Amino acid sequence: MVNTIGIVGLGLIGGSLARRLVGRGCRVVAWNHRPHPYADARRDGIECVDTLAQLAQERPDIIMLCNPLRAMPQVLADLKDVIDRDATTLSDVGSVKAMVRSQVADAGLADCYVGAHPMAGTELSGFSASDPGLYDGALWAITVDEHTNYQRFLAVANLITEQVGNRAIVLDDATHDRAAAMISHMPHAVSTALIGELSASPDRNIAAALAAGSWRDMTRVALTDPERTRAMIEEDASNVESLLRELSGRLLAFADDLHRGDDEAMTRFFAEGQPFRDYKSRGAVNDAEPFALDIDEAGWQGELLESARRGEHIIRFTAPRQVLVEVRSAL
Amino acid sequence: MVNTIGIVGLGLIGGSLARRLVGRGCRVVAWNHRPHPYADARRDGIECVDTLAQLAQERPDIIMLCNPLRAMPQVLADLKDVIDRDATTLSDVGSVKAMVRSQVADAGLADCYVGAHPMAGTELSGFSASDPGLYDGALWAITVDEHTNYQRFLAVANLITEQVGNRAIVLDDATHDRAAAMISHMPHAVSTALIGELSASPDRNIAAALAAGSWRDMTRVALTDPERTRAMIEEDASNVESLLRELSGRLLAFADDLHRGDDEAMTRFFAEGQPFRDYKSRGAVNDAEPFALDIDEAGWQGELLESARRGEHIIRFTAPRQVLVEVRSAL
Repeated sequence: MVNTIGIVGLGLIGGSLARRLVGRGCRVVAWNHRPHPYADARRDGIECVDTLAQLAQERPDIIMLCNPLRAMPQVLADLKDVIDRDATTLSDVGSVKAMVRSQVADAGLADCYVGAHPMAGTELSGFSASDPGLYDGALWAITVDEHTNYQRFLAVANLITEQVGNRAIVLDDATHDRAAAMISHMPHAVSTALIGELSASPDRNIAAALAAGSWRDMTRVALTDPERTRAMIEEDASNVESLLRELSGRLLAFADDLHRGDDEAMTRFFAEGQPFRDYKSRGAVNDAEPFALDIDEAGWQGELLESARRGEHIIRFTAPRQVLVEVRSAL
Repeated sequence: MVNTIGIVGLGLIGGSLARRLVGRGCRVVAWNHRPHPYADARRDGIECVDTLAQLAQERPDIIMLCNPLRAMPQVLADLKDVIDRDATTLSDVGSVKAMVRSQVADAGLADCYVGAHPMAGTELSGFSASDPGLYDGALWAITVDEHTNYQRFLAVANLITEQVGNRAIVLDDATHDRAAAMISHMPHAVSTALIGELSASPDRNIAAALAAGSWRDMTRVALTDPERTRAMIEEDASNVESLLRELSGRLLAFADDLHRGDDEAMTRFFAEGQPFRDYKSRGAVNDAEPFALDIDEAGWQGELLESARRGEHIIRFTAPRQVLVEVRSAL
């Protein structure tokens, strides 16, 4: 059982997590780079400290890094000499995982690290926008590599399933970052390209006048802070690049199909996404019963990755080497 | 003043329009290719007839074709010998305009035709999904060519601004179809390509599990009936084709920027859509006062197209040759 959680960064994600954990009976100690949210945070039962050294001295079971990714190297540099590596496992909520793991390794903290990424967020930011309900029904990716310590993994997994009350899947960094590029980072670039197209058109006022729901939905994410979007894309640049090349080729091939009036090829183009349409139309309804998976001591990382590939989500650990899973996203 | 409106096709668009017009005091006579919505439609005050000939015999001021575009040639063939061309103006709500005008011309009905396209719709279909509120605040494109009779144009424009209570812009077919491809038909293809990419990925279950708001919004339109989407794209094929080639090139250029880490080019990529972000952030707030435009007898089509290009929307006709406009979508 996790007793004390350290939170670095009381923004939207860290603040919401801290408040949720306090509300569910955890002791939470937090540090923020500026103390402005401390008064509100203390009212919510969060213990706030002035330095990262003080946070480390509390010897939290887990320190969850919820700071912006650009601050990660500095935070890790400040933590590396003060953290009690035996007592504390280091984790983070960053939206790209390979980069963070390499920064953690550069700081010499690889041995006590387990990555994490909660699928939760809004377009808002800051502690004032935080909300424990942000995590309602959220799924976390837990990212591991072949060196990840199983006990530390278990501590982070239990934090997520027991203390936060969420579900989880286990991935390697590369799979996580590729999947995140697919469903978020690359689409952000596409959305940005769409508003670039419209803005460059001599008929832009007419096009904007005719725009309805499809345009609004396809371009919503292009309206959010372009600096934040750019940072997100650059942090996962090689995955975004290769997916953009693929998508660009797919669009060009469809333009050729249209040009030739190739009936069969067009049928294929529309059929390719049918597994996703079927998956969405099934909705959250799931008749499958949860079932137990035993986890081997060797190769547990690969086993849990395969479970994620089958669309299984971890509900909770029923024993140190047994996990209850449920099929939730099988296309 | 329009007295009787004929509606062909009681689907989502036609049914909602019929119910709205009845609710605003018009007499509406409707025909549907199958009579299944008639009981409900009659309860709503819509007069339903069994044949297109009966509809034509009512000599409606305007017959609004709200049938699916694939049915257009047959509907026009059935109407051409029964319509009273002196009494009735023919219009339609189709989402592409060049194709419909050419079908109308093929049926020998060009002289009594004025095109229209309301920017309203949902992913639902059928009379059971109809809702007079679907047209709340909607903008219509009215499409004309150099032969369009001004009085017939005025009748359709007044139907839209007075009876339906909406705004309008006046376009030629080519400009309409290019703009509609930009904000709807092409993005539908992009959305379809995105779910094709995900479905083809070996990590599709993981990607689907990680998907959140940005993916949901970017792919919503790909979940609607792919047959309907395909028809819409094929009806505007050459515009969609050329926009897809442009977008594909834009995405490829950005992939190259990412690969090179070209800071300046990336800044340009994110800046290109800034006029649209600024336009959206101004929202519906509009300090400009409505003002009157006089319409010349000669060249009125081009004058009103220029007005649309300046971002002006027609509020209503204050005299047969004077229109009240308001700047609503200037990027």
